[in-house]
Amino acid sequence: VTALARRTVIVGTGLIGGSLAASGRRAGALEHVVGVGRGRDNLDHARAAGLVDETSTDLAGSLDGADLVVLAAPVDACCELLETVATHTGERCVVTDVGSVKVPLVERATALGIASRFVAAHPMAGGVDTGAAAARADLFDERVVVLTPNPATAAEAVGLVRRLWEACGARVVEMDAAAHDAAVAVTSHLPQMLAFCLSAAAGRDAARGEHLEELVGAGFKDTARLARSDAAMWAAIARLNGGSILAAMDRFSAVWQELRAAIEAGDEQALRVVMSEAAAFKSRVDDR
Amino acid sequence: VTALARRTVIVGTGLIGGSLAASGRRAGALEHVVGVGRGRDNLDHARAAGLVDETSTDLAGSLDGADLVVLAAPVDACCELLETVATHTGERCVVTDVGSVKVPLVERATALGIASRFVAAHPMAGGVDTGAAAARADLFDERVVVLTPNPATAAEAVGLVRRLWEACGARVVEMDAAAHDAAVAVTSHLPQMLAFCLSAAAGRDAARGEHLEELVGAGFKDTARLARSDAAMWAAIARLNGGSILAAMDRFSAVWQELRAAIEAGDEQALRVVMSEAAAFKSRVDDR
Repeated sequence: VTALARRTVIVGTGLIGGSLAASGRRAGALEHVVGVGRGRDNLDHARAAGLVDETSTDLAGSLDGADLVVLAAPVDACCELLETVATHTGERCVVTDVGSVKVPLVERATALGIASRFVAAHPMAGGVDTGAAAARADLFDERVVVLTPNPATAAEAVGLVRRLWEACGARVVEMDAAAHDAAVAVTSHLPQMLAFCLSAAAGRDAARGEHLEELVGAGFKDTARLARSDAAMWAAIARLNGGSILAAMDRFSAVWQELRAAIEAGDEQALRVVMSEAAAFKSRVDDR
Repeated sequence: VTALARRTVIVGTGLIGGSLAASGRRAGALEHVVGVGRGRDNLDHARAAGLVDETSTDLAGSLDGADLVVLAAPVDACCELLETVATHTGERCVVTDVGSVKVPLVERATALGIASRFVAAHPMAGGVDTGAAAARADLFDERVVVLTPNPATAAEAVGLVRRLWEACGARVVEMDAAAHDAAVAVTSHLPQMLAFCLSAAAGRDAARGEHLEELVGAGFKDTARLARSDAAMWAAIARLNGGSILAAMDRFSAVWQELRAAIEAGDEQALRVVMSEAAAFKSRVDDR
């Protein structure tokens, strides 16, 4: 692989940013990589682990000469950092991100006049552990990465970001940003909200002295696995993708009420309609 | 361990019944074990795998001389089979079960006049695989088994069933049957209903052509893991424990509406209340 970028600045060298640095350098797609962050410890770890060539806590100062900037901080921080990046990078510098919500970033980039060179991206990868310590070069193997370019985005910029992710082993899919945000509201944000509410509801019951903890098994634990997810990150996602999340919650609630009515009426056929739809979709995603 | 029963009849030699047979015999708690079922193939497998000493498809005929009967068929079938067991066993034969709903079995046993010798039990163990082929002697190691005796239950009968499960490596907890059913409605039946509805809702969205499958990640898969669970079993549980399930669903819905309102209002503090309650309860059950 010919190098796609000589100087790359990755803002946020956590699990995703650190893994992209490691993977892109290993593949030869990225030459010199600068890791930028606020926390010295995490940056030092990223440097010591060989994820990046250089580190900095000064975003504006590190951007000089960059031909690729990857925003890999929390999604709300990335929205704010876009202005600094737009101001301190040249016309030939491609800017991308890794956030799980795309419309606010695309809108912000457009408002800042960098729509042609901003390529919004969302790698569908992650893990329970976070920080540079959890980063690994094979994190994106076989994973889907969604790009949400629009007519204003330069084809060469899209091509560069696509080739970068392909070099990291990912499968790239292009979608409309709004369609992306509506889809992840269902596939990612809705399960997250369900896990929060399941665990919170059980916690309230337990607080009434029902000794529920003893009766918690593997089913509860898997369904509520996400209940300990980072609150700050999810508060930001709920703010940035609120409309789509509310719509997804309401479509869930319609099915929920249907199931509830079936149980109340003892209508086994109606119950089985929901169950068979559930099994069918789960089979489809398991078989992928 | 001194043998607790010389002739044990286990009705249903699937994952639970087969594992109990294997575990109880290995521990020396059960001497001769007869596996009873309707399907010849599964019984042959149980016999060939050494889970049981003898098999039969004739429940009534196998009960002669039994001093312990374990109902390990689907929970609705167990309710129906209790009459045959009550009729064909003597006063000294202890009857127990392994169903995940307890009140209907206790009520049926009482109506059949065997309340003193029926010990309702619920081992909190299971697995994705089913049938005798999935049975294993260590399935109950460290698992909780709930017994729900009442004042009518003879102490010796409770003691026998308790010692059997302890011999199998389980930790025995006694609860009131109605309290058990209300608790599992939250810890087991509620997550199951959420998984069904999450997967069904996503399936309906996907059917509208939104290409959701590509955006399904690990979070969705875990939250919806139970979506392919056995429909017949869950239809029976929904029927037998409908009241408690509806109440648990409604308490979930109250939290769900609270979260929805917080997102709609952009009220991060209210959102964080639910998130922190969720994290706190999940931490408690993870730390157990």
